[in-house]
Amino acid sequence: MEIVCVGNELLIGKTLNTNAHWLARRATSLGIMVKRITVVGDDVDEIAKVIREVLKRKPRFIITTGGLGPTFDDKTLEGIAKALNLKLEVNEKALKMVREKYEAYVKVGRMEKVELTPHRVKMAKLPEGAEPLPNSVGTAPGVMMKVEGTFLIALPGVPSEMEAIFDESVAPLLKKEAGEVAFFEKSIYADGIMESTLAPLIDQTMHDNLYVYIKSHPKGEEKKPHLEIHFSTTAKDSKTAKEHLGKAIIQLSELVQKKNGKIKFQNRNY
Amino acid sequence: MEIVCVGNELLIGKTLNTNAHWLARRATSLGIMVKRITVVGDDVDEIAKVIREVLKRKPRFIITTGGLGPTFDDKTLEGIAKALNLKLEVNEKALKMVREKYEAYVKVGRMEKVELTPHRVKMAKLPEGAEPLPNSVGTAPGVMMKVEGTFLIALPGVPSEMEAIFDESVAPLLKKEAGEVAFFEKSIYADGIMESTLAPLIDQTMHDNLYVYIKSHPKGEEKKPHLEIHFSTTAKDSKTAKEHLGKAIIQLSELVQKKNGKIKFQNRNY
Repeated sequence: MEIVCVGNELLIGKTLNTNAHWLARRATSLGIMVKRITVVGDDVDEIAKVIREVLKRKPRFIITTGGLGPTFDDKTLEGIAKALNLKLEVNEKALKMVREKYEAYVKVGRMEKVELTPHRVKMAKLPEGAEPLPNSVGTAPGVMMKVEGTFLIALPGVPSEMEAIFDESVAPLLKKEAGEVAFFEKSIYADGIMESTLAPLIDQTMHDNLYVYIKSHPKGEEKKPHLEIHFSTTAKDSKTAKEHLGKAIIQLSELVQKKNGKIKFQNRNY
Repeated sequence: MEIVCVGNELLIGKTLNTNAHWLARRATSLGIMVKRITVVGDDVDEIAKVIREVLKRKPRFIITTGGLGPTFDDKTLEGIAKALNLKLEVNEKALKMVREKYEAYVKVGRMEKVELTPHRVKMAKLPEGAEPLPNSVGTAPGVMMKVEGTFLIALPGVPSEMEAIFDESVAPLLKKEAGEVAFFEKSIYADGIMESTLAPLIDQTMHDNLYVYIKSHPKGEEKKPHLEIHFSTTAKDSKTAKEHLGKAIIQLSELVQKKNGKIKFQNRNY
């Protein structure tokens, strides 16, 4: 899977990209591996270029975030259409979703009457052949297309809307694709040992534990080394995962203690 | 400028990519535009592939984060060397930096004696012709290379180390490149107006204010629309910037008020 995040606010460092983080975590936990995350600005040509590049790598899933709203700089669908040489056209199913949202807004007194202005109709203009995904939180529908072997899914940039559409319409698809495989992880913490001393011990433990990936993350300051050691594995059931993780954790803990390091199973407060 | 972040922890959603956010913000404020951010895993071939792709787009600067440490999965320099068909070799200047770090650790009693193990020497193995950048916070030096018209700069993934090397060695270079140009921004907040109603007002204001970029960000819930409206501009001095931003803010505020929206200059608490 690849993630493509669209938005100038990400490139000027105004907004922290919590969407990519959330999506990566959710996909991983469902057993789908994220290979690359790309962030581009609100520019039709740039978006089209990136979508074409990603499609060439033939991932099973591409999820985009951002650029589905009513404003002039919401350009993701235009970019996707350009990448695929498709027209944008009003999708009747999407227009119905948008209209019903505004009807609901009228009911709660948020607006006087439903006016489908060009900016509102824009949210229902999808690439030909695309399928709208209901947005239970906001107005703009998500969008799903199949491009040869790839599912291309466009989600809004507002986190609550992106998460709702993902959970309702995308997660079931990912789960089906991954089958029973899921991702398991555990962190332990080491004090009093430097990362460069730990490095060969991790090498040895990974060599002896084929299914476990181990990575150290320095967390302390220079004078008090404090390392997080993160163990992860993919397995068909949690029993197998726990066995694999447990064996690797015990082996590495013993190696660390031989080098006078202290192992803790809880993080210190920093 | 392009940013390339290396690390499996970013692709599995373990770590939030605050480094890309920090770098994008700092570069933008110095007047350098970030065009793309790419996140890849700890894989030599993937890193090499991305570096080659980015170099083809000929940005003036490429900054990578992560993958400079002593562990087996710190592979950024190997990936860069592969992309450029260069050998990795022990850089004497870098080795001196690393040795001095360990000598300092001995002095503060963090280790007994300086042992330059293979994992420690690894941090001084740079692509041929590269220049190490001093790391005042941690052990692994940063790395700078010139590839035709592009400065390729590799920084560590630990945020405090990445930030220190950037501020000491990279920011002056970016500042020189940008000249007097800098980035200015201001947000105002609108209540009681929907984003789809605001959209055409932004179009009009941007049309009348050539140098100002305006983007709306929904912040409220469905029942209480609350929008952040972000104005930004690049200008040679803060007086010009303030004039441009001020004129656009006043025009858009008046348009919003005509539609019965309320403008606030402070965010509500959510």
